[in-house]
Amino acid sequence: MSKRHIYLEDVPLDEARAKLQAALLAAGRLGPLPGESVLLDRALGRVTAAPVRAKLSSPHYHCAAMDGYAVAAADTRDARETQAISLRLGREAQAVNTGDPLPENTDAVIMIEHVNQTDDGRLLIYASVAPWQHVRLMGEDMVTTETVLQVNHQLRPVDLGALAGCGHATVMVRRKPRVAIIPTGGELVPPDRRPERGQLIEFNSLILGAQIREAGGEATTSEIVGDSLAGLRSALQEALDAAPDLILVLSGSSAGSHDFTAGAIEELGDLLVHGIAVRPGHPVIMGMIGTTPIIGVPGYPVSAALTGELLIAPLIRAWQGLSPAEPATVEAVSTRKIVSPIGDDDFLRVALAEIDGRLRATPLQRGAGVITSLVQADGLAHIPRFHEGVDRGEAMRVSLYRSLSQIKSTIMVMGSHDPMLDLLATHLRLFSAARRIVSVNLGSIGGLIALRRGEAHLAGSHLFDPATASYNLSFIRKYLPNEPCQLVTFAQREQGLILPPGNPRGISEISDIRGLRYVNRQRGAGTRVLFDHLLDQHGIASHEITGYAHEEYTHLGVAAAVADGIGDCGMGLRSAAEAMGLDFLGLTWERFDLVIPRRALETTSLQALLTVLRSADFKRELGAQSGYRSDETGQVVEA
Amino acid sequence: MSKRHIYLEDVPLDEARAKLQAALLAAGRLGPLPGESVLLDRALGRVTAAPVRAKLSSPHYHCAAMDGYAVAAADTRDARETQAISLRLGREAQAVNTGDPLPENTDAVIMIEHVNQTDDGRLLIYASVAPWQHVRLMGEDMVTTETVLQVNHQLRPVDLGALAGCGHATVMVRRKPRVAIIPTGGELVPPDRRPERGQLIEFNSLILGAQIREAGGEATTSEIVGDSLAGLRSALQEALDAAPDLILVLSGSSAGSHDFTAGAIEELGDLLVHGIAVRPGHPVIMGMIGTTPIIGVPGYPVSAALTGELLIAPLIRAWQGLSPAEPATVEAVSTRKIVSPIGDDDFLRVALAEIDGRLRATPLQRGAGVITSLVQADGLAHIPRFHEGVDRGEAMRVSLYRSLSQIKSTIMVMGSHDPMLDLLATHLRLFSAARRIVSVNLGSIGGLIALRRGEAHLAGSHLFDPATASYNLSFIRKYLPNEPCQLVTFAQREQGLILPPGNPRGISEISDIRGLRYVNRQRGAGTRVLFDHLLDQHGIASHEITGYAHEEYTHLGVAAAVADGIGDCGMGLRSAAEAMGLDFLGLTWERFDLVIPRRALETTSLQALLTVLRSADFKRELGAQSGYRSDETGQVVEA
Repeated sequence: MSKRHIYLEDVPLDEARAKLQAALLAAGRLGPLPGESVLLDRALGRVTAAPVRAKLSSPHYHCAAMDGYAVAAADTRDARETQAISLRLGREAQAVNTGDPLPENTDAVIMIEHVNQTDDGRLLIYASVAPWQHVRLMGEDMVTTETVLQVNHQLRPVDLGALAGCGHATVMVRRKPRVAIIPTGGELVPPDRRPERGQLIEFNSLILGAQIREAGGEATTSEIVGDSLAGLRSALQEALDAAPDLILVLSGSSAGSHDFTAGAIEELGDLLVHGIAVRPGHPVIMGMIGTTPIIGVPGYPVSAALTGELLIAPLIRAWQGLSPAEPATVEAVSTRKIVSPIGDDDFLRVALAEIDGRLRATPLQRGAGVITSLVQADGLAHIPRFHEGVDRGEAMRVSLYRSLSQIKSTIMVMGSHDPMLDLLATHLRLFSAARRIVSVNLGSIGGLIALRRGEAHLAGSHLFDPATASYNLSFIRKYLPNEPCQLVTFAQREQGLILPPGNPRGISEISDIRGLRYVNRQRGAGTRVLFDHLLDQHGIASHEITGYAHEEYTHLGVAAAVADGIGDCGMGLRSAAEAMGLDFLGLTWERFDLVIPRRALETTSLQALLTVLRSADFKRELGAQSGYRSDETGQVVEA
Repeated sequence: MSKRHIYLEDVPLDEARAKLQAALLAAGRLGPLPGESVLLDRALGRVTAAPVRAKLSSPHYHCAAMDGYAVAAADTRDARETQAISLRLGREAQAVNTGDPLPENTDAVIMIEHVNQTDDGRLLIYASVAPWQHVRLMGEDMVTTETVLQVNHQLRPVDLGALAGCGHATVMVRRKPRVAIIPTGGELVPPDRRPERGQLIEFNSLILGAQIREAGGEATTSEIVGDSLAGLRSALQEALDAAPDLILVLSGSSAGSHDFTAGAIEELGDLLVHGIAVRPGHPVIMGMIGTTPIIGVPGYPVSAALTGELLIAPLIRAWQGLSPAEPATVEAVSTRKIVSPIGDDDFLRVALAEIDGRLRATPLQRGAGVITSLVQADGLAHIPRFHEGVDRGEAMRVSLYRSLSQIKSTIMVMGSHDPMLDLLATHLRLFSAARRIVSVNLGSIGGLIALRRGEAHLAGSHLFDPATASYNLSFIRKYLPNEPCQLVTFAQREQGLILPPGNPRGISEISDIRGLRYVNRQRGAGTRVLFDHLLDQHGIASHEITGYAHEEYTHLGVAAAVADGIGDCGMGLRSAAEAMGLDFLGLTWERFDLVIPRRALETTSLQALLTVLRSADFKRELGAQSGYRSDETGQVVEA
């Protein structure tokens, strides 16, 4: 194995694509795959490998388009309203049903409603008819040899009908591109095994396999290969034996994996690219072993999914003669300043919502390990190379991951995130399938600022003001002086100290935490405001609290830190402690409100939300949760 | 069986939907179906039956986010560029790879690039690090008990990854709605049988089955039931025994089918609706047998497909907790005046093209039997009840059947349709997957008028002017006086008389057709202009030609009429005669040109088309067709 260090070359995306294309061309693997014949009822979504011509005209004979009587139009020439003509039934006029072939010597059909029959078997006709009236002429729809469908056409339900209608029982479609997926990484275990500490669940093969199927290909995933060059080499050989159109080597996140992949490709074939200037997704590898292309996919799930979207799915489509999928795009205003690395094509997951008639894009977490940022994303913003980023308030193009109508019925909640907002989202969804709640956690004060900037429909807030002994009102006056709002109570929640199981430090009141490692919440969080107030009440100074500077962003984050032994205690919700199997020392009940600008209040979205919030079902389920009371849920707080 | 005549009630669409909903509600069948557990790699496209919560945090331990050394941040407090600190390797600093669990008593990772190692096993550090630097905290992505996916969410590739990542190997999804399809009609045969005269191929079950699968359901189709109430009754009973969620009875086009369906439903259950005020699609039937809904689907394929789209697919989606699919819509200007029946919701298939920066919609054939109108349609325009129609030039909303980008790369050809335009379309498609040619047959003069009105990108024309003995030029001057155009030759074609096999009338020159039944082309067709010129040359008056008034719209239409014995001969292309296995008497070669307005000439679409037209491959294949010469193909005709 050569020791050249070509790792992370920073090849621009377009150049990497071009290199692979050139290698495929040289290998005779660039064009669409050959055809195979499939039965029509298996052909939905497949792509025609050749133009399809009618084998049969449709209809393949002149036929009646109505129920009635077939006649020769010429025989009716003299018929008038006032002077009926009569034709012998069974001879000059013959009964036909819709679809029946036109009898010989007839060329028109008279509707059953427009004639009368005499007792002696004659038909009375009161108006002359034109030739071919109410007749479907042979070939009206399709004529033998006519091109019915073009090549490289993805078959839809009506296409299948048309093919059958012109005499086909099968259709030649492009063979499905076959992809062999090889997951690698000594730390990985399959999804049906519970991972130990130090082990991670391998799920990139699931994402990529599904992306490939969605693009029309077939994927088979082999066993996970540990961190061993020999293991990878033999997995590659096994994959090559099955003659796939493409091999994907998925790298685990552990060091070494990338080098194994690049090394194995160099050893068995040609390494084309090692590192693409795309964020996230950098350590992509491209190579050829013989005439088989290999793509090394980065281990971080967001990078892996984007590699699938940007590089792999388009290849699968091209092999079927399809151009890359073109998602709908929209223009949206960024709610944040976005700084982009100048040398990279930067792809940002964003949440979208329509607020005051404009689409607003809020970037989601950047980390390539955070797959929830892809799950939650409404779209993908592309900041091209040589661009420094996007200013707050600047418009950018976003490719949609959801339909625009779904995005337009999204309710954007910013501010403090209560876990029970997810319960509300579930009830809202069951109430009205299209409505979604997206909750972006910025802390209570962050939510009020987001409302002021017009970035959210409503904000979650639980800010206690000791001066007035009230929640939220004085903060709204301070942060939203010019925005008339309605305050609607979401829930009463129990706050207290989250403690390790069994409360090993024997904490029984807040002053017991002096000297222990405390896990704090971020600045602007209502729980931090509450904690500061409690410290104040008990005459404790913040510098007496070890870990006051350790900031977590959610209740569950605090609980996780306590569970993991990073801290000895932290302030948070009873529900968070119980969810993680921790002890809890209740200190107080607080009110969590929804802050709704009055101009948003009358929209159908907000009305639906309030209807669900005030429904007996929701209130019952909310009140049954440990650490929650719902008796004031839905009530308007008077200012 | 009661004899009430409730056939064709004209129930408005919304009312019909509401009646079915009410009946489903009463039967306890309205809400989404219950869940079933499926493996993640089978779950793509399925819909969650409950919110999914994380079973495991992701990552489920604090881990290194980089390759390097894990340290306690506090130990590095005094490190400076100019004053390195040293830590003992294996004790205060430990080598970690990305993804490794953070060793005890460490809380940060220093990248391998930022340290130096001494010979005695110590690490030199040149800058202090913050706690949790390059560490992925436990739960950074997902925290146990957190809601990862909402209920009624259709699973995408990344969702499957997220589910696996938080500890799920399976997911509860809505059971697939099951539909039993019963085709009825004595005249129908399955697609794998060649139909006799009087028989039609049954393909509506293919269309509806595919629509149902596309919407997420499962469809099983039973054998075709003939025109017999007893047969239908037993097919219904058999379907009911399998306990489907929905039964569809597809009626053939023959009379009586509808009554059988309605009759059988009345006999076994309740008939809710018989006839909906929708065009096309009128004779829709809705009923309930016990708690099972039955929909009777009209026999004409366009009506059947629209019934599937408007009534059935939304039901299949609703049973999975999904709202109806919402196709993208665009605003397009109608190129025709459209008259709509005032009492009906009118659905029109339209072809779309972007011309001079505006989307233009051209209505396709209305006939409910013409399935090609659905195959060719780019979109569906809905003209609601109580609207009389749309004026030419008026804007209307169109739901898209293709992506907007595909429509924008469509080249709209109007005018004379040469069958070899399909060959050009094939070559263009192979050259550039996204480009499509749509050819609307209006005859040569119709094409020039369409160009004048800005309805097409180019026109096909083969108009001979005896006065100047030239093609097209004088007609362009007449019909397009203010539109500078370029004339590009498409092909030379052989025109002549299409004759029955064996030429039973012994026709050897044009004057032989006197007294025979001639099949003519429509007014404005180049072939008719040519025929008139030939008659003139031979001193034949049009009234001497029987059938001069019988107009067909295409060469293949003329050939079909001759093949079927409707006429004894007709003028048309050699290729059309040979395609239908007919005899042909060649009379002349003519030039078929493409008329391209100069302002369209420089667009990338037209440039791609001309490149393909002039390619050696295309010219070779065109020239090899019987009745075609391609030596002038692609040449510009000088005015």
